[in-house]
Amino acid sequence: MNGAESLVHTLVNEGVSVCFTNPGTSEIHFVSALDRIPGMRCVLGLFEGVVTGAADGYYRIAGKPACTLLHLGPGLGNGLANLHNAKKANSGIVNIVGDHATYHIKYDAPLTADIEGVARPMSHWVRKARTSMSVSADAAEAIGVAREPPGKIATLILPADTAWGGAEQVVCAPAFARRPPVSAHAVTVAAKALSGGGPSACLLLGDVGVRGRALELAGRIAAKTGCVISSEFNSSRLERGAGRVQLMRVPYVVEHATTTFEKTTQLVLAGAKSPVAFFAYPNKPSQLAPSSCHVTQLAAIEQDIEAALEAVASELGALNTPPAGVAELSRPALPGGPITLEGVGALLGTLLPENAIVVDESISSGRGFGSSTAGAPPHDWLSVMGGSIGFGLPCATGAAVAAPDRKVILLEGDGSAMYTVQALWTMVRDQLDVTILVFANRRYQILLGELADVGLGEPGKNAYDVLTIGRPDLDWVSIAKGQGMEAGRATTLEELAKEFKRGIASSGPYLIEVVT
Amino acid sequence: MNGAESLVHTLVNEGVSVCFTNPGTSEIHFVSALDRIPGMRCVLGLFEGVVTGAADGYYRIAGKPACTLLHLGPGLGNGLANLHNAKKANSGIVNIVGDHATYHIKYDAPLTADIEGVARPMSHWVRKARTSMSVSADAAEAIGVAREPPGKIATLILPADTAWGGAEQVVCAPAFARRPPVSAHAVTVAAKALSGGGPSACLLLGDVGVRGRALELAGRIAAKTGCVISSEFNSSRLERGAGRVQLMRVPYVVEHATTTFEKTTQLVLAGAKSPVAFFAYPNKPSQLAPSSCHVTQLAAIEQDIEAALEAVASELGALNTPPAGVAELSRPALPGGPITLEGVGALLGTLLPENAIVVDESISSGRGFGSSTAGAPPHDWLSVMGGSIGFGLPCATGAAVAAPDRKVILLEGDGSAMYTVQALWTMVRDQLDVTILVFANRRYQILLGELADVGLGEPGKNAYDVLTIGRPDLDWVSIAKGQGMEAGRATTLEELAKEFKRGIASSGPYLIEVVT
Repeated sequence: MNGAESLVHTLVNEGVSVCFTNPGTSEIHFVSALDRIPGMRCVLGLFEGVVTGAADGYYRIAGKPACTLLHLGPGLGNGLANLHNAKKANSGIVNIVGDHATYHIKYDAPLTADIEGVARPMSHWVRKARTSMSVSADAAEAIGVAREPPGKIATLILPADTAWGGAEQVVCAPAFARRPPVSAHAVTVAAKALSGGGPSACLLLGDVGVRGRALELAGRIAAKTGCVISSEFNSSRLERGAGRVQLMRVPYVVEHATTTFEKTTQLVLAGAKSPVAFFAYPNKPSQLAPSSCHVTQLAAIEQDIEAALEAVASELGALNTPPAGVAELSRPALPGGPITLEGVGALLGTLLPENAIVVDESISSGRGFGSSTAGAPPHDWLSVMGGSIGFGLPCATGAAVAAPDRKVILLEGDGSAMYTVQALWTMVRDQLDVTILVFANRRYQILLGELADVGLGEPGKNAYDVLTIGRPDLDWVSIAKGQGMEAGRATTLEELAKEFKRGIASSGPYLIEVVT
Repeated sequence: MNGAESLVHTLVNEGVSVCFTNPGTSEIHFVSALDRIPGMRCVLGLFEGVVTGAADGYYRIAGKPACTLLHLGPGLGNGLANLHNAKKANSGIVNIVGDHATYHIKYDAPLTADIEGVARPMSHWVRKARTSMSVSADAAEAIGVAREPPGKIATLILPADTAWGGAEQVVCAPAFARRPPVSAHAVTVAAKALSGGGPSACLLLGDVGVRGRALELAGRIAAKTGCVISSEFNSSRLERGAGRVQLMRVPYVVEHATTTFEKTTQLVLAGAKSPVAFFAYPNKPSQLAPSSCHVTQLAAIEQDIEAALEAVASELGALNTPPAGVAELSRPALPGGPITLEGVGALLGTLLPENAIVVDESISSGRGFGSSTAGAPPHDWLSVMGGSIGFGLPCATGAAVAAPDRKVILLEGDGSAMYTVQALWTMVRDQLDVTILVFANRRYQILLGELADVGLGEPGKNAYDVLTIGRPDLDWVSIAKGQGMEAGRATTLEELAKEFKRGIASSGPYLIEVVT
């Protein structure tokens, strides 16, 4: 057994059964070990941003880490933006990054780089394996870290000689850690803050707080107290749709958010952070709740959020109160005519299949889709948590790998889609069940808005050139075809309905260019 | 004047006249300043790997730095792999990376990251601007660093409030620094090492040593002493073709390289490093010259390599010796029949236009193209210096921006091309004069070779799956069309000749899928 084999055994034994990868020469012994040891599904990405983003999407749905296999510092660098997104989403990932043999580093061959330095900003844990004998123990520790609540990024650097050198043991990882409970005091303080104030109190939910029993408990607390219940602007996986408790969503635009919170006197955080502006702007606040608002942390993100909500509901006598704000099944009428964002939202509300996984990187186009889909059959909604674009296609890839029996719907901006467009190929190769809507507005619309918002007026030539992506227009049907994916174009809502139904009917990937 | 305006004035005043960019909200004041201050050409990339790779290619041809404008830690992360390549190529670049306003950082908004940490592994100099008043001075220092021989990566992080806050002055950068001379002792030792040994001595040239008068001087020294003159395996910009001194090239394959050097007793380095294996392999050496070989450094890469060679030639009495190894104009016959790599090489030798810039990321396909193009009209040959794939398309983009009057020929592997495929769009938008040959062998051929080389035998299912990129085949004509680029496919050498001539005749970009 060599180090690479001990590593693969360790991963497979611990249930790390998917490897998203783009390998190179320094990883060749790991690749070869995957041939000899059963139990690992290998998913190739043609660019490392696909690899790391897929691992993020996989964790959000599977609830356990995948591993990535990356090629030295530059390969890790290519994956960094989506590792940033994954880190902010608290998705657990075990990165394996190949390196030169330990004795080769000093010769400064072309691919030599400070891999630990590249890894550190986007990892919770970084280690370079010292010898082939200890690789399994290193991997076991990495797996343990990745599984720590609420999910962490562990990066193990694997010098080539620690892969090809001999190994003797396969080490077990620590079991999945339980989330630590919140204190009784935190429960009492939160219950008090939420009771009596009606809608001037807000319970803000994050992480697993927007799912399952935690979500239901939030609904019961709201019914009992009249408090507002809200998700953050983005959630890693929000359960919503008919039969589920419907949450407010913190707005993106600073003025909208501050208006939303202007009468809030008590803010209780359960797995969420006190809301802040996505960006700073001259003469606008960073914090979205008024300074007079009293902020209480019921549960930090790594704590047992569900148990904390249960305790609060119990203290409030709300455990049997029927939840407030449960969405009823309500499909809008199928819209027609020219494509408008309102029309697209209504169409999604009408046609979204039950139990779909919606991956949302529609940026400016998708802001209104939430209300029109609120009454659709139950579904999950996955948003980018780190703000780095190029998240959608890879996340949808990983989500589809994790849930082959569910339909994935990807809502994608054209600007964002280009960042990690290579994911189309992986979806085709692995025949992933993803229907992709690319909103082709031919511009970075959000930036044109920001330019106006900060009082810089109409764009001049240079600004217009770098904030729009027309000239030439991207032809998404050809881009998809180039990677072997079937695709269609919709210029009316009728065409979009037809294309969307075609995507839903397919068991493989399908792309729709939505000309907006 | 705000900080962003002072920054743009500083850049433009110093001749930094091209900004490769993909901006975001935190860079919006810089973008707006570009509207009001003339003198900066903005080139938009739809992914940051395009942006940084283009800045590398630009420097290699223009001989001066461009700036990049990138969006926080993730935007920089996306550009990191090609910054790695640029750093190893010693290309000077001024990176401007937007950040949150200084007071906003503590709120840990989604895009908050340790940008300095991300920058450091691939930068020679990193600074975060402290106030809007000092931004110009910071930029001037960055420009000075980027221009230090042989070219460096300077990364200036620009918090949004240092862009929108007031500024009063525009600071001048230090002038282009002269390369320091080598010592007289180094010249004497090198001259002695090269003389008398005939072909057992080797003069290994790097950086500017493979161009212009330095190259000619190397030819004179070889003629006088009988020494071997060689470039490294890769050169940032190698001048070659008819009328120029032809160099040996250090082979990639370890066994070939050690055989090449087995009789070398004296190795003299002029801007080059002692040759090392690209990767380490079990039971193969890291150093390619035998341990008995005596290695002398004539000139470090930052020193005045040309003057050093002049001094050596003078000491050897070779200043007027006609250079050895001057290539004669010699075009192979235009080949026909099925596509073979030998045939493609001959075709390039026949059809390569005079004064072309060849960007070579053909990896395994292109190893034999050197000999068949040695007698083509004079041209420059640009290779990837950091070993990170995804270099070719962006480098060709930047080279074409730097030299609008020259034809750029890009030799590109299909696997590598996918990494930064978004560059096609930039080439179309800016109507860059680039003819692209994508060698579509549908696999990471080099890795299949490495697998066999390290004794791991034939690939099994997992290895085969992650080392090949067929299933589905990439359709490069559609990929190009999707980004608005004209393209054709060649399945015979006759078709390739026709397509190549079409590309050469065009004044804009043209892509050819070469089915190998």
